[in-house]
Amino acid sequence: MEEKENFMREAIKISIDSMRAGNGGPFGAVIVKDGKIIARGFNKVTSSNDPTAHAEVVAIREACNVLGSFQLTGCEIYTSCEPCPMCLGAIYWARPDKMYFANTKTDAAAIGFDDQFIYEEIALPISGRHLCTEQLLNQEALEAFKEWEKKTNKIEY
Amino acid sequence: MEEKENFMREAIKISIDSMRAGNGGPFGAVIVKDGKIIARGFNKVTSSNDPTAHAEVVAIREACNVLGSFQLTGCEIYTSCEPCPMCLGAIYWARPDKMYFANTKTDAAAIGFDDQFIYEEIALPISGRHLCTEQLLNQEALEAFKEWEKKTNKIEY
Repeated sequence: MEEKENFMREAIKISIDSMRAGNGGPFGAVIVKDGKIIARGFNKVTSSNDPTAHAEVVAIREACNVLGSFQLTGCEIYTSCEPCPMCLGAIYWARPDKMYFANTKTDAAAIGFDDQFIYEEIALPISGRHLCTEQLLNQEALEAFKEWEKKTNKIEY
Repeated sequence: MEEKENFMREAIKISIDSMRAGNGGPFGAVIVKDGKIIARGFNKVTSSNDPTAHAEVVAIREACNVLGSFQLTGCEIYTSCEPCPMCLGAIYWARPDKMYFANTKTDAAAIGFDDQFIYEEIALPISGRHLCTEQLLNQEALEAFKEWEKKTNKIEY
């Protein structure tokens, strides 16, 4: 119990330090394997001109780099705030064993972040979303998928 | 109409070329501003050990780098496949004017990609998800959010 809280306190400390340093929003994350922190991430959207540079994405990319793997098997992610859909999707793709969070998406919405809005949008059918969306050339694109299916020397993920 | 289809054909061509080159799955994306492609992206999850390196994320990061901005105002994104939740979230954060897609998430699921599964998981309450999740230290983390609210020299995004 104590250990889990210490890892989360590190994520919270990162969220505060990086906000004060002007890197971006008040968000931090750490990734733990075998009882040790192997990667840290903080939000640097505005300082790096990268809308994908949320704390969790930054930490996942760093942890995968450290491990030389595109999977976080055996790892746990501690994030100072419940992930937005982008980060939650990234976590599903990275497949850590467990996620810990502190603040909620409702807490994030209350200080002006779009997490809740994006959750609502993603759950809607395409035609009901605010994001203007149009489908084109499905048949032509399917050729790539058919080729992938038949490909023998592929790495699945 | 012709122009839209040409941009999508470029995204499809990228999906095929990069799959054949062994970079990752059969996915490509381009970002267009003022009638010109300003960034391209292809899936390089397995070749770069980065589970977040989907075509759309790669293209968004590149376009933002080109523009020197964390927003894609005035841009359109063409992706050879309907985005997974991670990429759709990234698109919402980047805020392009419009999204075009070719293959659907159902097409992606049919060739073994988890997009549909992740959409279903994200829509569930935390307790119902396959991802083991636990909340810790909400009160301590909220201090960071309170400080953000009061911060005067912040860049909102």
